[in-house]
Amino acid sequence: MAGRKVLIVYAHQEPNSFNGSLKTVAVEELSKQGCSVTVSDLYAMQFEPRATRNDIVGCLHNSNEFNYAVEMTEAYKKGCLSNDLMEEQKKVQEADLLIFQFPLYWFSMPAIMKGWMDRVLVQGFAHDFPNCYDSGLLQNKLAMFSFTTGGTEEMYAKGSMSGDIRYILWPMQHGIMHFCGVKILEPHICFAPEYVSEEKRKEMLTAWAQRLKTLWKEEPINCTPEWYFN
Amino acid sequence: MAGRKVLIVYAHQEPNSFNGSLKTVAVEELSKQGCSVTVSDLYAMQFEPRATRNDIVGCLHNSNEFNYAVEMTEAYKKGCLSNDLMEEQKKVQEADLLIFQFPLYWFSMPAIMKGWMDRVLVQGFAHDFPNCYDSGLLQNKLAMFSFTTGGTEEMYAKGSMSGDIRYILWPMQHGIMHFCGVKILEPHICFAPEYVSEEKRKEMLTAWAQRLKTLWKEEPINCTPEWYFN
Repeated sequence: MAGRKVLIVYAHQEPNSFNGSLKTVAVEELSKQGCSVTVSDLYAMQFEPRATRNDIVGCLHNSNEFNYAVEMTEAYKKGCLSNDLMEEQKKVQEADLLIFQFPLYWFSMPAIMKGWMDRVLVQGFAHDFPNCYDSGLLQNKLAMFSFTTGGTEEMYAKGSMSGDIRYILWPMQHGIMHFCGVKILEPHICFAPEYVSEEKRKEMLTAWAQRLKTLWKEEPINCTPEWYFN
Repeated sequence: MAGRKVLIVYAHQEPNSFNGSLKTVAVEELSKQGCSVTVSDLYAMQFEPRATRNDIVGCLHNSNEFNYAVEMTEAYKKGCLSNDLMEEQKKVQEADLLIFQFPLYWFSMPAIMKGWMDRVLVQGFAHDFPNCYDSGLLQNKLAMFSFTTGGTEEMYAKGSMSGDIRYILWPMQHGIMHFCGVKILEPHICFAPEYVSEEKRKEMLTAWAQRLKTLWKEEPINCTPEWYFN
């Protein structure tokens, strides 16, 4: 929708990958709608995933015993976070929609993207107990997890050895984004693109573009345990 | 048990932290038993969490389109993985038990530890489809996830807003370790150590040492969806 702002947090090493194409399709389609689209291309940025004292500029609150969460909360209040984090927070603050685009690594997101979550979503910025879940600080934003898998759809069906794909979504959608007050759109999952034909891959890209056309009319999911585990 | 080998993969920035104490207690207690204990202190090692082409030494299999999983499988076969990964794999290979010690970050492990999983557990080394789950390549090993939380035990009870803590264990225990054929011991969870008295924290450390005394008699859990979601 014209005027809306979208942040795509993108984690793939290879621009020519299928994930790269999904990202490009999203940039093109959303731009065509008049959205303003920003991409955080984590590998290209060599984004730092490690949560260390380098994330705090200047003196620590308690330098005898380093407590990351405590230090980050203090540093956020005082405007003493490292520049890379302030920039990501600014992008998040401005965005109406966050799209996370990545290949599934070990039933989760790649470490570089987990590091983005660990470091950017600081207490005071994204949540501030008891301001979490429906009263999290990033209310009025939407998030969507868009990812590719190695396994086929059948491998991630309920009752299969790898279990329902929704089990995997719980920590990411509920534990992170919903915790920060963000509303969750249905995930967009491309199963096993490496094992299908070039034609089928093109169909997947077209389906993604199609979905994005009507994205702003979608209702968020009801992000409760029932959605994931029933 | 005397002669057994243990690898502790440890992710905390601060040696004086409660996680640091849990790690030290484990090293001491297991050493006292005659076990040989190795610690991978990920922050101290400045362990690299990002999955990039730097993980492969020498020429890529396909340098036109970088596919991390494909390249890593080839590099493993040819002995062309980066040194840090070969060293971690050697430690895993030799270990009878892997203990993962960390603070819970966003319903999961910190990015630096996720990076250890992403980069070390290469196809051909840890799994090789269809050799996964009970026929994974790291059979005859045990793993335990030992972690601290910010939230209290009640906050991670079934029916609570954050859901059963077991939901969070699915990707880590089942999706990673069980996928590689590793048998899973009951997790060791210290809830909200930051919010209890010094005395209670000491009790937690004593309880951990006590558990480790009889660790080798424990039966692995039945790592099926029922354990997690029923």
